[in-house]
Amino acid sequence: MILYHCADARSFRPLWALEELGLPYELRMLPFPPRVFAKDYLAENPLGTIPLFVEGETRMTESAAIVEYLCSRHSPGNLAVGTDEAGYGAYLNALHFGEATLTFPQTLVLRYLRLEPRERRQPQVADDYAKWFLSRLRGLARMLETSGFVAAGRFTGGDISVSYALLLAQTLGLAEEFPPVVTAYWERMQARPGFKAAKAAQAAASAGQGVEALDVAKL
Amino acid sequence: MILYHCADARSFRPLWALEELGLPYELRMLPFPPRVFAKDYLAENPLGTIPLFVEGETRMTESAAIVEYLCSRHSPGNLAVGTDEAGYGAYLNALHFGEATLTFPQTLVLRYLRLEPRERRQPQVADDYAKWFLSRLRGLARMLETSGFVAAGRFTGGDISVSYALLLAQTLGLAEEFPPVVTAYWERMQARPGFKAAKAAQAAASAGQGVEALDVAKL
Repeated sequence: MILYHCADARSFRPLWALEELGLPYELRMLPFPPRVFAKDYLAENPLGTIPLFVEGETRMTESAAIVEYLCSRHSPGNLAVGTDEAGYGAYLNALHFGEATLTFPQTLVLRYLRLEPRERRQPQVADDYAKWFLSRLRGLARMLETSGFVAAGRFTGGDISVSYALLLAQTLGLAEEFPPVVTAYWERMQARPGFKAAKAAQAAASAGQGVEALDVAKL
Repeated sequence: MILYHCADARSFRPLWALEELGLPYELRMLPFPPRVFAKDYLAENPLGTIPLFVEGETRMTESAAIVEYLCSRHSPGNLAVGTDEAGYGAYLNALHFGEATLTFPQTLVLRYLRLEPRERRQPQVADDYAKWFLSRLRGLARMLETSGFVAAGRFTGGDISVSYALLLAQTLGLAEEFPPVVTAYWERMQARPGFKAAKAAQAAASAGQGVEALDVAKL
């Protein structure tokens, strides 16, 4: 399995899942955004987006989908929730919610506050979507009420999908506005050996492959 | 099963899946946006988002996740792709891609060109994300190359997820810019009896429940 990855980008989700599952993989680091700084990558993934995941004939570009794939194919009953389990719907919902509802709005904040040239920045839009994201965390807080996990009373791929949104929010300076239950959850997620192993793997691969991470805080 | 729905909103995905699968369901129509025009709905779904799907203890809010749930729980091997099938990764990827990559950007177009009061409209942002959406259709065109479906050589929940994005694009006036292969695919999808049945079901329920659809073209 090959994972194309930028440090702390959405591809952190499948990287974390690979480490949680203890699977063998090759990590190929790219500078961010690869569309600009690694034009060769367009031959692999013409969309230029991160991640790209390759296993044999399977090629995937959606980070939460790759997590789901890894959990179901390589660890049914562990990080996946079975179709016959009570938490199956909550599991699928969290996998999608983490990206479509909690991550995409933050990319507006990143784009219009940091990445765009100054004359194209849109503080109103960045503010609209920072608020949008924070309001959706109430939904996450409710998911966590029963067990402290998003589904099935245990750590699953759904937690990986949702937690990546919290990682991005921290990078963007939004973590101080998390509800307390979300802050506590985020601390527990970061303390997992699998999370730490994924952080260590991307640091080692960045150094080994000579790829510098983008420091969003300095933009 | 109960589905809370606004005409042609994301909840059209699970509605279409229910019709394709021939499952019994109750459709509860809401005016758009329910957050403003159906405040009682907030007691059911505090996020105020559409859809909400309820089956026993299962409550879901992510439209592509509900499609996946319906396909796996109620029709394994038909509209779902099994974990051991070659197209499993492509199937999951399309389910997520349809929403996270193809639909969310269009909501920016809708919001900043039509829904916001005039003084808050942002034509630059609407234009940025219309282009963003259209560029991602190249990814869809590639998915369709092999079989004319997004995964596994047959119609699946992945096609429902992706096709809803095309429905929204048509509403927003972006359909003329579809690549030809996408236009042909979209025509085939609309010709399906399940698609037509979902359209008829929402029209009948709107009339029966006295809920008018929002005409985006008139905003």
